[in-house]
Amino acid sequence: MSVKPTAALAKSRKSGAPETVGDAKRVAVIGAGAMGLGIARSLKRAGLDVAGYDPSPAAKTALIESGIESAASAAAAGADADVLVIAVVDAEQTRSALLGPAGAAGAMKPEGVVIASATVAPDAARALAREVEALGRAYLDAPISGGAAKSATGELIVMASGKPEAFDRARPVLEAMAATVYELGGEAGIGSSFKLINQLLAGVHIAAACEAIAFAKRLGLDLETVYKVVTSSAGNSWMFENRTPHVLAGDYRPLSAVAIFTKDLGIASDVGRASNFPLPMAATALQMFLMTAAAGMGRDDDASVARLFAQIAGLELPAARREH
Amino acid sequence: MSVKPTAALAKSRKSGAPETVGDAKRVAVIGAGAMGLGIARSLKRAGLDVAGYDPSPAAKTALIESGIESAASAAAAGADADVLVIAVVDAEQTRSALLGPAGAAGAMKPEGVVIASATVAPDAARALAREVEALGRAYLDAPISGGAAKSATGELIVMASGKPEAFDRARPVLEAMAATVYELGGEAGIGSSFKLINQLLAGVHIAAACEAIAFAKRLGLDLETVYKVVTSSAGNSWMFENRTPHVLAGDYRPLSAVAIFTKDLGIASDVGRASNFPLPMAATALQMFLMTAAAGMGRDDDASVARLFAQIAGLELPAARREH
Repeated sequence: MSVKPTAALAKSRKSGAPETVGDAKRVAVIGAGAMGLGIARSLKRAGLDVAGYDPSPAAKTALIESGIESAASAAAAGADADVLVIAVVDAEQTRSALLGPAGAAGAMKPEGVVIASATVAPDAARALAREVEALGRAYLDAPISGGAAKSATGELIVMASGKPEAFDRARPVLEAMAATVYELGGEAGIGSSFKLINQLLAGVHIAAACEAIAFAKRLGLDLETVYKVVTSSAGNSWMFENRTPHVLAGDYRPLSAVAIFTKDLGIASDVGRASNFPLPMAATALQMFLMTAAAGMGRDDDASVARLFAQIAGLELPAARREH
Repeated sequence: MSVKPTAALAKSRKSGAPETVGDAKRVAVIGAGAMGLGIARSLKRAGLDVAGYDPSPAAKTALIESGIESAASAAAAGADADVLVIAVVDAEQTRSALLGPAGAAGAMKPEGVVIASATVAPDAARALAREVEALGRAYLDAPISGGAAKSATGELIVMASGKPEAFDRARPVLEAMAATVYELGGEAGIGSSFKLINQLLAGVHIAAACEAIAFAKRLGLDLETVYKVVTSSAGNSWMFENRTPHVLAGDYRPLSAVAIFTKDLGIASDVGRASNFPLPMAATALQMFLMTAAAGMGRDDDASVARLFAQIAGLELPAARREH
């Protein structure tokens, strides 16, 4: 297992000069939501020949407005593609896009490579890889991290596993969408396992940040000062530093929604049970996200767990400013 | 509430030239364990006139070997002290050292200032402050963070509250022991509340780090690679970055013991119940530390929560190298 962060593209981005690829590969992007649209735009900016597909009319419009071909089906987008990026929500959508009635896998060039970026259980990634490989195409188990902002700038983190030759063929695409590509092993399932560990920690840390900032309010502390002290102390986490400002601004517009973590911690819970492994911290965090979703905030920002505490305990957390 | 990080001393430390204080204040340090001994040495290095007290023979020897006066009682150490640093474990020991039969508070100079650094409940800090002030001395509610290493180098973080004039009189001592002194408010209880929030997060993050690294082992991942990927991703925390290497090295010699977190998350649990506030993440983490202590690892490093998972699930985490 080797870690090979690919920094080359991040560099070319900074210089402002998009790097064009000699043989202008044909690339399909399935799913043009917050992540997929950013990826499609990044690939186009890098000079690749991009077609997108998303069943939503709004997403179709967004593709067209970005000057990207909006195909009529996953199969149409994937026709003769060298590389196909799947930017959908879960394993079921991934399966449908690749292997369903109008699925794209069989339409790709014979040496085509699938980059499957949804967060799925490792077993699901292995099953998908087997089926795609049975059709003669290659599969990279390649979950992504970084959110819509890093997707838009082509600076995602990709945690990927798959055959070395698949990495070689997909590299121009990976480099156009990511600042860092971790090559984590030679078979599907490993990338998804890494993503699962990362999501477990991320979810626990968000729930903890929300619990701590709400408790600080109960204790009568100045929350801006709590933020300053914690972020310079041993209690800090990437998520505390990133999400607490949403609470301080009273801004719960979804940069990443509660529903992402009911899904991803749900996968962790499933995998834990399937492998007979207890995950008490992840299980508690999952319950906090479920309570927040049940209270009507599932589509709001995941920092809404703090609002759940405020509702329960009658706290006044900062309110949104008018201009929001 | 203002945050005033005091960076002056950190600078003088780095230049290698300890800053001597003009009027060589008399300072007592009660408790000469991992934290207190480092504080006493830092104060002496800064040119202060230091007396220490600890009932343990080993600690007495350590004081003497550091060229620091080892007093026969807290009262003897505190006699005519300008400033007294309490570096004991909890509120009960703090009370005993200050206000017990051979307590130090009444022996100090009339304008003496107590720097109380144990992690205690905010109510306990308020009660101690009232009693010390009733004896005419000033009280800074001043929990510390940074561990034995930062204590030894005089680079602790102090989260303090108390009267401005008490801060003024204690400043040479605070600057000699700390890289950063947060002045968080004008009365006792605020410093302890900040420490409580920090410990809640720190404890949750250690439990989560141990759960995640053990789960990664169950999933068959290379743990060194997990460490590299997580520490550069959104799943990172200060504690994951700091404690996971103990697991990777199989080294559970206590830099900070499991018992610290059964204590500190116990305080969080008490304060939560007293203020009618649910703390599900902290409660779950507390149970993980209690299980680890119950399994015989209470005095080992707090990363031992990972060993608990390994015991339960039959995992082989890295073993210690022989030279340990």
